[in-house]
Amino acid sequence: MTQPDPYVHPPLHAVRDAVARALAEDLTPIGDLSAALVPAAARADAEFIVRVAGVLAGTRCATETFRQIDEGIEVHWTADEGAIVAAGTVVGHVRGSLSSILTAERTALNFLGHLSGVATRVRALVDALHDAGGIDAPRVWDTRKTTPGLRALEKAAVRAGGGRNHRGNLSDWVMLKDNHLTGVGITDGVARARDLWPARTIHVECERPEQVVEAVGAGADAILLDNMSPQQVQECVRLVHDAGLGRRRPLLEISGGVTLENAPSYARTGADMISSGSLTNSAPVLDIGLDIRN
Amino acid sequence: MTQPDPYVHPPLHAVRDAVARALAEDLTPIGDLSAALVPAAARADAEFIVRVAGVLAGTRCATETFRQIDEGIEVHWTADEGAIVAAGTVVGHVRGSLSSILTAERTALNFLGHLSGVATRVRALVDALHDAGGIDAPRVWDTRKTTPGLRALEKAAVRAGGGRNHRGNLSDWVMLKDNHLTGVGITDGVARARDLWPARTIHVECERPEQVVEAVGAGADAILLDNMSPQQVQECVRLVHDAGLGRRRPLLEISGGVTLENAPSYARTGADMISSGSLTNSAPVLDIGLDIRN
Amino acid sequence: MTQPDPYVHPPLHAVRDAVARALAEDLTPIGDLSAALVPAAARADAEFIVRVAGVLAGTRCATETFRQIDEGIEVHWTADEGAIVAAGTVVGHVRGSLSSILTAERTALNFLGHLSGVATRVRALVDALHDAGGIDAPRVWDTRKTTPGLRALEKAAVRAGGGRNHRGNLSDWVMLKDNHLTGVGITDGVARARDLWPARTIHVECERPEQVVEAVGAGADAILLDNMSPQQVQECVRLVHDAGLGRRRPLLEISGGVTLENAPSYARTGADMISSGSLTNSAPVLDIGLDIRN
Amino acid sequence: MTQPDPYVHPPLHAVRDAVARALAEDLTPIGDLSAALVPAAARADAEFIVRVAGVLAGTRCATETFRQIDEGIEVHWTADEGAIVAAGTVVGHVRGSLSSILTAERTALNFLGHLSGVATRVRALVDALHDAGGIDAPRVWDTRKTTPGLRALEKAAVRAGGGRNHRGNLSDWVMLKDNHLTGVGITDGVARARDLWPARTIHVECERPEQVVEAVGAGADAILLDNMSPQQVQECVRLVHDAGLGRRRPLLEISGGVTLENAPSYARTGADMISSGSLTNSAPVLDIGLDIRN
Amino acid sequence: MTQPDPYVHPPLHAVRDAVARALAEDLTPIGDLSAALVPAAARADAEFIVRVAGVLAGTRCATETFRQIDEGIEVHWTADEGAIVAAGTVVGHVRGSLSSILTAERTALNFLGHLSGVATRVRALVDALHDAGGIDAPRVWDTRKTTPGLRALEKAAVRAGGGRNHRGNLSDWVMLKDNHLTGVGITDGVARARDLWPARTIHVECERPEQVVEAVGAGADAILLDNMSPQQVQECVRLVHDAGLGRRRPLLEISGGVTLENAPSYARTGADMISSGSLTNSAPVLDIGLDIRN
Amino acid sequence: MTQPDPYVHPPLHAVRDAVARALAEDLTPIGDLSAALVPAAARADAEFIVRVAGVLAGTRCATETFRQIDEGIEVHWTADEGAIVAAGTVVGHVRGSLSSILTAERTALNFLGHLSGVATRVRALVDALHDAGGIDAPRVWDTRKTTPGLRALEKAAVRAGGGRNHRGNLSDWVMLKDNHLTGVGITDGVARARDLWPARTIHVECERPEQVVEAVGAGADAILLDNMSPQQVQECVRLVHDAGLGRRRPLLEISGGVTLENAPSYARTGADMISSGSLTNSAPVLDIGLDIRN
Repeated sequence: MTQPDPYVHPPLHAVRDAVARALAEDLTPIGDLSAALVPAAARADAEFIVRVAGVLAGTRCATETFRQIDEGIEVHWTADEGAIVAAGTVVGHVRGSLSSILTAERTALNFLGHLSGVATRVRALVDALHDAGGIDAPRVWDTRKTTPGLRALEKAAVRAGGGRNHRGNLSDWVMLKDNHLTGVGITDGVARARDLWPARTIHVECERPEQVVEAVGAGADAILLDNMSPQQVQECVRLVHDAGLGRRRPLLEISGGVTLENAPSYARTGADMISSGSLTNSAPVLDIGLDIRN
Repeated sequence: MTQPDPYVHPPLHAVRDAVARALAEDLTPIGDLSAALVPAAARADAEFIVRVAGVLAGTRCATETFRQIDEGIEVHWTADEGAIVAAGTVVGHVRGSLSSILTAERTALNFLGHLSGVATRVRALVDALHDAGGIDAPRVWDTRKTTPGLRALEKAAVRAGGGRNHRGNLSDWVMLKDNHLTGVGITDGVARARDLWPARTIHVECERPEQVVEAVGAGADAILLDNMSPQQVQECVRLVHDAGLGRRRPLLEISGGVTLENAPSYARTGADMISSGSLTNSAPVLDIGLDIRN
Repeated sequence: MTQPDPYVHPPLHAVRDAVARALAEDLTPIGDLSAALVPAAARADAEFIVRVAGVLAGTRCATETFRQIDEGIEVHWTADEGAIVAAGTVVGHVRGSLSSILTAERTALNFLGHLSGVATRVRALVDALHDAGGIDAPRVWDTRKTTPGLRALEKAAVRAGGGRNHRGNLSDWVMLKDNHLTGVGITDGVARARDLWPARTIHVECERPEQVVEAVGAGADAILLDNMSPQQVQECVRLVHDAGLGRRRPLLEISGGVTLENAPSYARTGADMISSGSLTNSAPVLDIGLDIRN
Repeated sequence: MTQPDPYVHPPLHAVRDAVARALAEDLTPIGDLSAALVPAAARADAEFIVRVAGVLAGTRCATETFRQIDEGIEVHWTADEGAIVAAGTVVGHVRGSLSSILTAERTALNFLGHLSGVATRVRALVDALHDAGGIDAPRVWDTRKTTPGLRALEKAAVRAGGGRNHRGNLSDWVMLKDNHLTGVGITDGVARARDLWPARTIHVECERPEQVVEAVGAGADAILLDNMSPQQVQECVRLVHDAGLGRRRPLLEISGGVTLENAPSYARTGADMISSGSLTNSAPVLDIGLDIRN
Repeated sequence: MTQPDPYVHPPLHAVRDAVARALAEDLTPIGDLSAALVPAAARADAEFIVRVAGVLAGTRCATETFRQIDEGIEVHWTADEGAIVAAGTVVGHVRGSLSSILTAERTALNFLGHLSGVATRVRALVDALHDAGGIDAPRVWDTRKTTPGLRALEKAAVRAGGGRNHRGNLSDWVMLKDNHLTGVGITDGVARARDLWPARTIHVECERPEQVVEAVGAGADAILLDNMSPQQVQECVRLVHDAGLGRRRPLLEISGGVTLENAPSYARTGADMISSGSLTNSAPVLDIGLDIRN
Repeated sequence: MTQPDPYVHPPLHAVRDAVARALAEDLTPIGDLSAALVPAAARADAEFIVRVAGVLAGTRCATETFRQIDEGIEVHWTADEGAIVAAGTVVGHVRGSLSSILTAERTALNFLGHLSGVATRVRALVDALHDAGGIDAPRVWDTRKTTPGLRALEKAAVRAGGGRNHRGNLSDWVMLKDNHLTGVGITDGVARARDLWPARTIHVECERPEQVVEAVGAGADAILLDNMSPQQVQECVRLVHDAGLGRRRPLLEISGGVTLENAPSYARTGADMISSGSLTNSAPVLDIGLDIRN
């Protein structure tokens, strides 16, 4: 077996917990009523088929789902997490008790479909930006706008889709957002953050060029350009470059109202990242099915 | 306070658990770094504003989120769970510590946005069917294609949007689906289910009219018409009516490939229900924000 | 190994959780003090012996108990879940570290004894009804009167004993019970339930024949005949048959005060089911022991 | 409010956990379907009525059940935990939303019925022994033969019924039972236990008088007389008294096959305790109902 | 009540969980045996007294401990989290049921003593550095060498003691440590980290000056100087300053073998931070007691 | 593999839970960022090296940590739990994926370091007492002053270090401590405890010789001599011996202010046990590292 790539998979403890919760909600109180309708001894081979082209994600969750239902089921993937797959591709095989496979099927597919849907949407945005802007196009960033309870899984799916992870949660870097700025100014806020949280990323949300200048001067590590047009973004990029900080300048993030359609217009602005909550909270599932073969 | 309507809200234990998990993933390991950047004594009033017209859902989760962060925060809703609201509507108020409000904000909005998104999509389908078919149009049904871990919450949001809940999980009624039918026939399967699970709903997936006839004869309580055109559905409806069972005939469900666009073409087929996984697994969020006042 | 029959076993996630909780309450805070009194290297063979005739249930829980204590212990069952066994029958073997076996013994036996006790009581009622009424005798139904925390396990034990499962919980079908009827009438209640919960079983509790007639007219799927004598039950059966619904008539349940002694008097009433809370909440344990052989 | 007596109640954390689990198994996945059938605004008063004479136990669990469903429900007890109550006694009142009361009712009653059943059985044995033996009769002891997951609750119910708690689990005192004695002798075992676990109770199971003599000589704190007749018990009592240890002699426990019927024959043997697993694992529920008033 | 300062307290969800676990391990299986030995109606006033001078931390955990045992207990603090207190200072009051206070006492004190011990040790190091180096002395940093399960609480105690938090866990910033460098070089590792994890802190462990130069050139945000003497540190500081990056130079951390005794020798090296695992994993408790007054 | 000695290891369920919590706090929300910086296919051999002489403890936790991260990692110990090891000793080996090893490393070492630290401190006290008092020296006892959440693990480490476990928690034996004695007298308290909790250890805290006499007369099983000098202890020992109870006299515990330095002065007092909270709540870690070899 090839060693799984830790970059594209969610951590195992998060997978185990998410699967256990999903099975509990699907099987409480008395289990799968329909499981007893097929012969207990019947065995089956089944195939995961991606019915619409997209990016595969969630394989670790799907494997774990079968494992928690029946340790005797074998799951084998023929496409890697993060692979771009054509419609009709068989991406994995399952073999074992027919009854157990039927019990696990929907939960496994719910994980696969949702996480592949996220990865697919991310990949589409990555590609659209690259097509429009080449290697200098902004990279794609997720947000904290994730489905409650699935943060670790969705953030991994973003990576599998070729995107990058913004901060994981409130506990890993500092952001001064609009609502914080009702209580503290940028310069004071950054200074206080630098004092309280040495070495951590300090990220400031800006709505106007003057704020960008203030944030650069305050020493921010990253600046969120909120709801700006491509022209406004370019102006802010220029302001930041003018500060002469070279590689150590703040990273610039475009945020607010980005869609697959309008993203290319930002591809040559010189900003570093484009973030979008819809990657995780509005991605439709990728249609993946499990076909019984025997 | 008016008594909450138990039909549109998820059960409290599911709300408490989902919120606790969501906060743990947003605050582990060391909490909200940015919370200390605003004055500890600062207080704020804030408003939930629905930025795009839709159906409000998830209020119980949002309230619980603030409560778990800080029992001193007051949350007050001015629109009911399930209310249809115009863009720009203020649907609720929050008052308390600014720092606590900022910590809870994103998690509360993630619940509200996702669940309102589900309710909004359901309502759109309900209305489209009603517009095309009047009171005899099929009602809208959800599926088990829910986001893992959020079954109870999404099923409540479906109800808040005017839809109905299909079976909650594998443990509440019997379905003989295509993959089961690789292991047992319809007549035998229904008979075995009736014997093993007296009084439970027995639901059979049919792809062809002959299967519908067999399912009716076998005594099925509900029949899923899989991937049929409106004409095929009408033929099956006629076959079922021909059985002369009156009100005690099986309930008929249209399933497979239903979209907001094509649903109206099924509105006058005489089927009872239209189900769609996309209501829960592909609904984009409804854009709801929290604006600080003062 | 033969494939376990999913009908008679509880779902694995429920087994794992119940065993983990049982071991935690038996071993917190510092484990089995007495485990260190036998030589660490000592190994043993042990046998599960049923000391009083009955029905075996709970084997999956017992196996899991040993597995959670020590993965090196082998457990092998020589009687199936649901088997009727004579006094003195050896039903299973355990082999491994003596110390580990002693630590797991009581918890494993608590599961086996309790669940076999339930199955045995169910089987006695099933047999008594069959003896008195032949194949037309009512079948045995459990209730929601289960031991808190053990719903899934006890409901499986009922199936292992030859009984059937009534609704699993408040979330799988609708019941209008006496206390609901203080707030809504039968006809209105059934209509509202049919509207809100399409395709779900609607079950009405009736204390008088007029209520039965109303429930049939309202379209109930099942009717609970509360605390009626055999004669009253027969009268209600006749009323329902008179409605001319054939196989699609409501299922009739006898409930209230049923005992092993009086059940046979209901065996020829024509009702479908007899339910009794005492099957799960008042069954004495079946005496099963673990004898060390070496 | 009078302060609850900590001796007869289970610890709060165990109550909270047991209730949360019980509600989860009764309400997963989508809550109480029937709750929406009564008017959301309807309120009710209800009474807990003990229908058969017995001992009340489980009030803290019942209160917690209502509290977890709806914090607006008031619960008020008119009989104390451990009270001996006549058939027909109203022991408590509930007031609040009708819908919430109906949702909580069965779970609350399952706790009350089971725990009161345990307490009632204990009280019957306590009284039978006292009637036969007066104040010198053995006191009643429970065992580790409890229902999995309910150890804390059942042990509290034993105390509420006038019994005493044997060791709580494997972690609080040392027992050398028959299966241990396959691996170590009494004298060596007690010595090793005394060395490893200073100050802890060391309890030895004996099947023959010679073992009792050995256990006394070894310094055991308590001796279990396994499956002995009253005469055999008396002989063992005499042997222990002959050791001349006065008040510091080992405590003597009668165990094995004790029933309500045969217990009185042991009442004047001079033993200290009579233990019986059936107090906790085979007690039928006490019939307690909740009657809606108005 | 003054608003608690979110900077010095651990997040509430972590407090609730830690307290629940601590109480479960102290009260399983059957609760506080000794609680029944004092009169149930007895009430008491008690005082938390710090017996040795130090820094107070853990008040939120102590309050929560009493709250989980008995909601009727009032806890009132007269010193703030993070306060420097003299021996003999009364820092808080508890009032309520004597029995409940005795049950909660030890667990509350275990939290207070441990977390105050951490805060006290941190404060001692902060003060020693300040005394030797004034405002330019390195600040104190914790590590991931925390007690398993108490990360959030100990990191908060570090803040209460005047220290700063290094990364919270493996998920918030990137570190290339010696063992990573067996698999990848500094320049490549930083470049890969910058690509995969935009905007995150990238921190490199260096054992030699050449590595420091490489890390600066690679664009590291922070550099750990491993096991260096003050002279070696000064040389590295100079190398970094020579890079001419001004305020945007990497932050420099002294790590390895730092003690309260040798720390002052690093106070004027110009490094930014001094980290020490012993702050959290080897701090002795601060002696705090609870004295009953009545 | 040799069978693990159940006396020196914590129970497995406690190990699994503690490790799962520790990994969750180190990997939430998105896992080990740095894991992707080394080649996914890289494998490594690593060694656990004890850098300072001490007693090894926590091996079961360390093994479980690697197992939960990656089941493909092999862990092999070359020293036993409880072994006294010299500085520089290799005590175990790890082999498997480099990336997985790096992810697990710190958590595994946190367990090993802390628990070995406890064991080492215990062993030092055991040896100091033995050196001063020979085989009649008091044995070493722990207390309930443990780190919250780690009771089972620290108590096992005490045993691994050659100490003995005092009561595990509030639920295993009765103690009448100073604060209880504000509510009840010794004689009455012991009598009440003996009545309520037959066969359990009853332990009384005494500050003065008169109390010791009263406790002996009351029938206490163990007496805590609080904060007494060696002379006072000797006087109390004499008082107890004078009672003429021989081997059945109460066990005598020295408690309060015991340190490694002053403990030898108590070695010949004739007391049975010396207890110290600092063994568990103030032990510095033992320095153990993981060195990559490849």
